Amino acid sequence: MQAQLIALDWGTTSLRAYKLAAGGEVLEQRSLSTGIMQLPSGPRTLAGRVCVDGFELAFDEACGDWLDAQPGLPVIACGMVGSAQGWREAPYCDTPANVANLGHSLQTVRSLRGVDVHIVPGVIQRSRLPNVMRGEETQVLGALHSLPDEAVLIGLPGSHSKWVEVADGCIEHFDTFMTGEIFAVLSDHSILGRTQQRGATFDGLAFDRGVQVALSVDGQIGPLSTVFSARSLGLTGELMASAQADYLSGLLIGHELTALATVQRRRRDSIHLPAVVLIGNSQLCARYQRALDACGFARVTLAEQATERGLWQLAVAAGLLDSTASR
Amino acid sequence: MQAQLIALDWGTTSLRAYKLAAGGEVLEQRSLSTGIMQLPSGPRTLAGRVCVDGFELAFDEACGDWLDAQPGLPVIACGMVGSAQGWREAPYCDTPANVANLGHSLQTVRSLRGVDVHIVPGVIQRSRLPNVMRGEETQVLGALHSLPDEAVLIGLPGSHSKWVEVADGCIEHFDTFMTGEIFAVLSDHSILGRTQQRGATFDGLAFDRGVQVALSVDGQIGPLSTVFSARSLGLTGELMASAQADYLSGLLIGHELTALATVQRRRRDSIHLPAVVLIGNSQLCARYQRALDACGFARVTLAEQATERGLWQLAVAAGLLDSTASR
Repeated sequence: MQAQLIALDWGTTSLRAYKLAAGGEVLEQRSLSTGIMQLPSGPRTLAGRVCVDGFELAFDEACGDWLDAQPGLPVIACGMVGSAQGWREAPYCDTPANVANLGHSLQTVRSLRGVDVHIVPGVIQRSRLPNVMRGEETQVLGALHSLPDEAVLIGLPGSHSKWVEVADGCIEHFDTFMTGEIFAVLSDHSILGRTQQRGATFDGLAFDRGVQVALSVDGQIGPLSTVFSARSLGLTGELMASAQADYLSGLLIGHELTALATVQRRRRDSIHLPAVVLIGNSQLCARYQRALDACGFARVTLAEQATERGLWQLAVAAGLLDSTASR
Repeated sequence: MQAQLIALDWGTTSLRAYKLAAGGEVLEQRSLSTGIMQLPSGPRTLAGRVCVDGFELAFDEACGDWLDAQPGLPVIACGMVGSAQGWREAPYCDTPANVANLGHSLQTVRSLRGVDVHIVPGVIQRSRLPNVMRGEETQVLGALHSLPDEAVLIGLPGSHSKWVEVADGCIEHFDTFMTGEIFAVLSDHSILGRTQQRGATFDGLAFDRGVQVALSVDGQIGPLSTVFSARSLGLTGELMASAQADYLSGLLIGHELTALATVQRRRRDSIHLPAVVLIGNSQLCARYQRALDACGFARVTLAEQATERGLWQLAVAAGLLDSTASR
């Protein structure tokens, strides 16, 4: 089957490449570790020239062979590749942001081989504490078709998880939690990591215990205090070294969702919590699903293939595809 | 003036040594970076033997010359030196813990030069989320004489700040916040550090702004979310790179104190917040004093020389001193 589009999800630490056929069907996909903070250094010969540009090198590694086979394929990319530290800055669009219309605001960078890479802008919310996203706006678009009609909250767990309120195809409001990155730096660089013994398997009981602590009266003292219990429960023999990482994960995600529930109830002026659609890594979504359930978010569904669907739709909106391919 | 006691405050990252005269008067003091996680490695000749033991080497660096001059001086030490990773483990005493009585539970390790080092036990609170301290119990004892009669909360800011409730000379209850260490790992290892430009001078306006955010309605979303504003306010040009570290510091300390106020009001079943006595590094105490004031803790005082006073009193209680010296 003939490819119609190369779609790149190019973040801080990873680069995912999709070769898409008519209708957005995924023909092939690749996952590389060449995020914009981990670019290859070269030098290597590209298009007959010695190249040391990390973006060019990573781009070639990700899809050079696809372009060799079909030189005319259009390329679209979302994520941190469009940030000030990226390949070409694609200025943010303000909230409320109609995600389908983002396809009209693509920035272009011409690669060494002469192919244009079309970069999706991120979204900014200029609230008192501003919020920004790059990549998630594309995933939100890709999930829109699967949303129920009722008010829904879209969750995008990750290093920086985003919680997005969408109405009429527009991103109206969103919040960021640095939960994933805080878990990583505490585990890798704080005293909590010293007693953690990290295993290969997920310890669901330890995770749930952490969530329950965050939800409990003891949890009202907040995460700056409760995280110490990942150490002190170890000192008293109540939490094994092998359980400490998943306990800490549950504790932090539990605090995130407790705070989210409080803010959502206030914003909606209702004790009822909205339905949630999760987008992201399936293992991480499974953790959030457990914790959401414990926190009273009862109706949780997963959106599949949101990134590649969103990139396809933006390419269609931008007129990058043959009119016959986009059906 | 003749020395009567060597007192060591031996923590994770630092070792402070005091040479004390009768009545606890400080004759000389030293600050070394040889905490128990940063011990010297040797080899070096001590007492006629080649030594590679980091505790022995650090001990000799801290006060070997004082002991050469007065070989019979007693030595007392508090802090992480008594932990399982320390020189000799001094098992925790349980809350409620009479701090003056801790002098009856010293552990002893004999150094290569034949001098006994008497190590103060830490305190453990076996609550649902347990809490432990090592070193702070000695500082609390050293501050007791300066406490008002009313109910008072003792704050010990640091990598892990402790908030201690004392009644009748006993540590009744305490909480731990990992605020200082979380600030450090976020600044040194997370994306927030990448845009921080750290200067030599304290930016009080940026710090106060962070405290106010933690206290505001926006702050109710909790520190896992608000910390991202240290980056996003930079992206929107509302927070200079040079202000980001102190803003983050204010934000985290503000969240700590907001949570502390909530928990204190609940525990005391009163809207009134207790008087606070702060013990610790004067620059850090000054930050906490600003933030405590903003958070409604109106009556804040500083306790001076708490560590050396506490160690002196414990040595007296343990009978380590000549009876004439302890007056």
